[in-house]
Amino acid sequence: MRIEVICTGDEVLTGKIVNTNFSYISQKLEDVGLAVQWETTVGDDRENLLKAFQLAGQRADAVIVNGGLGPTVDDLSQEIAAQAAGVELALNEQWLTTMEEFFRKRSRVMPANNKKQAMLPTTAEVIDNPIGTACGFAIDIGRARFFFTPGVPRELRRMLEEQVIPRLLAKSGLQTAIFLKRFHSYGLGESHVDALLTGLEEMSPDRSVKLGFRAHYPQLETKLTVRGRDMDDVRAKVAPIEQEVRKRLGNFIMAEDEQTLEGVILKELASRGGSLAIAETFTSGQIAARLGHLPGAEKIFRRGVASRDLAEVFAGVGLEGAPATGELTRETAEAVAAAARRRTGASHALAVLIDLDDGPDRIDFGGTICLAIATEQGVDSRRSRILGGREWVRLGACEMGLDCLRRHLQGLPVYERIDFEKT
Amino acid sequence: MRIEVICTGDEVLTGKIVNTNFSYISQKLEDVGLAVQWETTVGDDRENLLKAFQLAGQRADAVIVNGGLGPTVDDLSQEIAAQAAGVELALNEQWLTTMEEFFRKRSRVMPANNKKQAMLPTTAEVIDNPIGTACGFAIDIGRARFFFTPGVPRELRRMLEEQVIPRLLAKSGLQTAIFLKRFHSYGLGESHVDALLTGLEEMSPDRSVKLGFRAHYPQLETKLTVRGRDMDDVRAKVAPIEQEVRKRLGNFIMAEDEQTLEGVILKELASRGGSLAIAETFTSGQIAARLGHLPGAEKIFRRGVASRDLAEVFAGVGLEGAPATGELTRETAEAVAAAARRRTGASHALAVLIDLDDGPDRIDFGGTICLAIATEQGVDSRRSRILGGREWVRLGACEMGLDCLRRHLQGLPVYERIDFEKT
Repeated sequence: MRIEVICTGDEVLTGKIVNTNFSYISQKLEDVGLAVQWETTVGDDRENLLKAFQLAGQRADAVIVNGGLGPTVDDLSQEIAAQAAGVELALNEQWLTTMEEFFRKRSRVMPANNKKQAMLPTTAEVIDNPIGTACGFAIDIGRARFFFTPGVPRELRRMLEEQVIPRLLAKSGLQTAIFLKRFHSYGLGESHVDALLTGLEEMSPDRSVKLGFRAHYPQLETKLTVRGRDMDDVRAKVAPIEQEVRKRLGNFIMAEDEQTLEGVILKELASRGGSLAIAETFTSGQIAARLGHLPGAEKIFRRGVASRDLAEVFAGVGLEGAPATGELTRETAEAVAAAARRRTGASHALAVLIDLDDGPDRIDFGGTICLAIATEQGVDSRRSRILGGREWVRLGACEMGLDCLRRHLQGLPVYERIDFEKT
Repeated sequence: MRIEVICTGDEVLTGKIVNTNFSYISQKLEDVGLAVQWETTVGDDRENLLKAFQLAGQRADAVIVNGGLGPTVDDLSQEIAAQAAGVELALNEQWLTTMEEFFRKRSRVMPANNKKQAMLPTTAEVIDNPIGTACGFAIDIGRARFFFTPGVPRELRRMLEEQVIPRLLAKSGLQTAIFLKRFHSYGLGESHVDALLTGLEEMSPDRSVKLGFRAHYPQLETKLTVRGRDMDDVRAKVAPIEQEVRKRLGNFIMAEDEQTLEGVILKELASRGGSLAIAETFTSGQIAARLGHLPGAEKIFRRGVASRDLAEVFAGVGLEGAPATGELTRETAEAVAAAARRRTGASHALAVLIDLDDGPDRIDFGGTICLAIATEQGVDSRRSRILGGREWVRLGACEMGLDCLRRHLQGLPVYERIDFEKT
């Protein structure tokens, strides 16, 4: 089945906003085993919209159109859809009532121009939008079934997942259950993980499990897409392969599915009634900022101290004596972590100290990272060197600090060699 | 002149990476007075690439193609360009030499598969890539001039600005000088600024100055695009209008052109040999993280303290006595800022304290912000209330804190009502 996507709107076409709706749609379709073949972006312009609808209608079996369903005069999707399908626009009483109800629930009167959102091509199938006034709809243009979706991201997401994807799966004849299993890791590059997972797809006798990756430094997401007759079948198929991924990637898996590294750390600390202090240098508050603002962190994030000057960090955690000059050591990080814990009374303290290279930023610019985790029982630490430019060092140090804390909380070794470090 | 853009590559088509190259291209063209009419994304697929090139060649005067110039087998742009233009591919000795030189300078031997990057359509005009091995080129397909550019963002940017845009301007007949003036503000919404600048375009007698906006909450960018015979003409035209923008937006302008709010603050502090301490609550280190890691900040960013618990912030800045319970006040923020300054010996201290609403996150979820700036001369403070959900409050509080510090450093009033606050 050939699927195309048409994105509309001057804001997207002029680059004023980055088109994240398209990447979202395409990824969601990939996740259920469908593939987008072609994407077109046009502005709020009658001639280009009509041409785009007609061309896609000649080439594709299904087309998802995003945007142009709003109440203002530059929202043209319904009008051009009707024109391309060769039908009239008519007021859809059902959607008008839905909209009036929408405003009544919010104690507001519907503005007159919203009525335009209930003007639909006469042959359109209404697709519900439970959280907005833009009415989704489906209609045939040329040889393709067109699905019109709202530009507001949360409205698009809900409509795509609950309404459009099931219709696409039905149309594609893929009457199968689909399941997506995700693993989040830090420290191994995409090609390394790919090599570690060699032969994994072949483990499923009918090749119903597909392996994929999404890299967003410093994290890597490993995805298993599984097909089956129903969810029981899918779960039976994926279970041994899931276990194999866990076995092969081992301690590098820091979170699964909707979990985040920060969330895993907060949960581990919450489960033992723990609390956390953080001391950092070059990252300047970014490690604390990753988790301190999250719901639930108000009980766990005790205190963060940051300075580019090690003497200031010493003073901030109440450490006696000036820091030793010369090379940054694990012992210094251990002393800072232990002092931060004592000073704040937190159950855990993380210290991430960085000694940046001198000179201008360039691809081989690096930093030496000494980090330590202190608890009542003692101190754990590691030293590492990351190259790749100033931003790369900063992002890598944040991730390494948090991931080592996760490892410590889960009783795993804090040190395992990662692909991004030079030794 | 009708301009289209074609983005190629499976990674973009499947949404694995978000297409920021397209928004970059489109914005850059807008900045020089050109407009993209249509964008197409296709994967690394011969049939779809050929069709996309042919269709664009029928519709457009100029087409920018991005991606597909790499050394691997899935990079197909040269091959399909030759096919669409009806010419052969041939080894371009000039580019081969350039590539060999590229590798020699880096003390490496050119891998054999890079040779593919020097295979160009025989009628192609080479477009130099001084920082990579992907050869840009221009060729006629249908009625359009096609410009092929690399997918690596920094290579694309340089080629677009230095080589493609001048060719597009020449082709469009816009033999004029173009200048882009940008103002960055915080606190006024796009429609408000638009209203404040009413009649601005009319101030230039020949309408050679165009006004535009780019909103990325919490900041707004106001752009003036100016055309003229040459740069002297352009500067003469824009000068009075620039002054008018500064007059109308006044204290809300926090930076111009390539400047950033963080950079302006660091520069102001550096110019007076100053230093900065920061104390924050809900933002959990994010305010410090905005500027602490920047080059030059090592001498200025003295210390940051963060905690969700006001008592911990008190302890962190060495403030005697427990914080008063009940409503958060400006006086509390003033006491924290003054103590942070005393404790660290910094010339300036910024305290941003936030009292979050109770209950779940929703669109009318809000927070009360009390912020203060302390110096040897005294303390300045303001209180504000921001609604719009948890993230909106967090981002708004960071920006407001830093912008008030900027205002203080520039001798401007710390309090002026902003559009995002409820009073």
